[in-house]
Amino acid sequence: MLKIRPATIDDAPLLRQLIWELADYEKEPDEVRITAGDLARDGFGPDPQFRALIAEWDGQPAGYAVFLRFYSTWSGRRMYLEDVFVRPQFRGRGIGRTIMARVASIALEENCTAMGWEVLHWNQRAIDVYRSVGAEFLESWRLMILRGDSLRKLAERDQ
Amino acid sequence: MLKIRPATIDDAPLLRQLIWELADYEKEPDEVRITAGDLARDGFGPDPQFRALIAEWDGQPAGYAVFLRFYSTWSGRRMYLEDVFVRPQFRGRGIGRTIMARVASIALEENCTAMGWEVLHWNQRAIDVYRSVGAEFLESWRLMILRGDSLRKLAERDQ
Repeated sequence: MLKIRPATIDDAPLLRQLIWELADYEKEPDEVRITAGDLARDGFGPDPQFRALIAEWDGQPAGYAVFLRFYSTWSGRRMYLEDVFVRPQFRGRGIGRTIMARVASIALEENCTAMGWEVLHWNQRAIDVYRSVGAEFLESWRLMILRGDSLRKLAERDQ
Repeated sequence: MLKIRPATIDDAPLLRQLIWELADYEKEPDEVRITAGDLARDGFGPDPQFRALIAEWDGQPAGYAVFLRFYSTWSGRRMYLEDVFVRPQFRGRGIGRTIMARVASIALEENCTAMGWEVLHWNQRAIDVYRSVGAEFLESWRLMILRGDSLRKLAERDQ
């Protein structure tokens, strides 16, 4: 049986493990620099930066979601789905859609008008799931990032 | 002379106007459904969803930025730059880079490891500015969104 519950601080090591499994599936395992301690502090401390759900199947951790509030200056409040993942051995049971339905429900309760996320362009399995629930690509937009020395150099220009 | 200052609730109508000017430049003026009242409530009320800066040139509003905290399960705290815009008659004076430098500086103060944003694939002028400060494209990722009836239908699956 499937149960979806909010993650607690005790789940930080499990979350770290599941995040790594998702990154490994996405062929980017070395990109995971976050620690269980970071997740405990950032998700379950005095100023939470994200929320997380754990999906359990017969008591076994089967998947997770991480999400946070977001804002669009065109349409207002949004929910951002940072991660949704179902472990391979638990796939084909609708767990991913059920987790997403819970996040969608929370988004509506909080007066969000949309839920957004990012997907790898080659991850057709995920894209098929997302399309099946009515999601659309934002075709015209590309993501950019500034980090490391470039971020520091730009910040130094500020007086 | 350029001055960059945090926006206040009194700037909500100005912000609404500048957001519309940016959307018009992006050829999507009809997408702006937000009102000055929404911005006043969501940016300057008890639970702020975003922060904003106003750039003034000799006391005239020349541009703005809207940004908010974000989170990556791979690398932790990030700043998300929702909008940065300089009015056409004020361009060529480095105002855009100066606004971005202020956001980068705030991001570092708050222990963010990166600053991210979205850009229209055809907006070469913006892309050139972003590249000049060291930003990179996240080439493999695409944006998806779920809204309206599709969001409501998915939420209804949640029990």
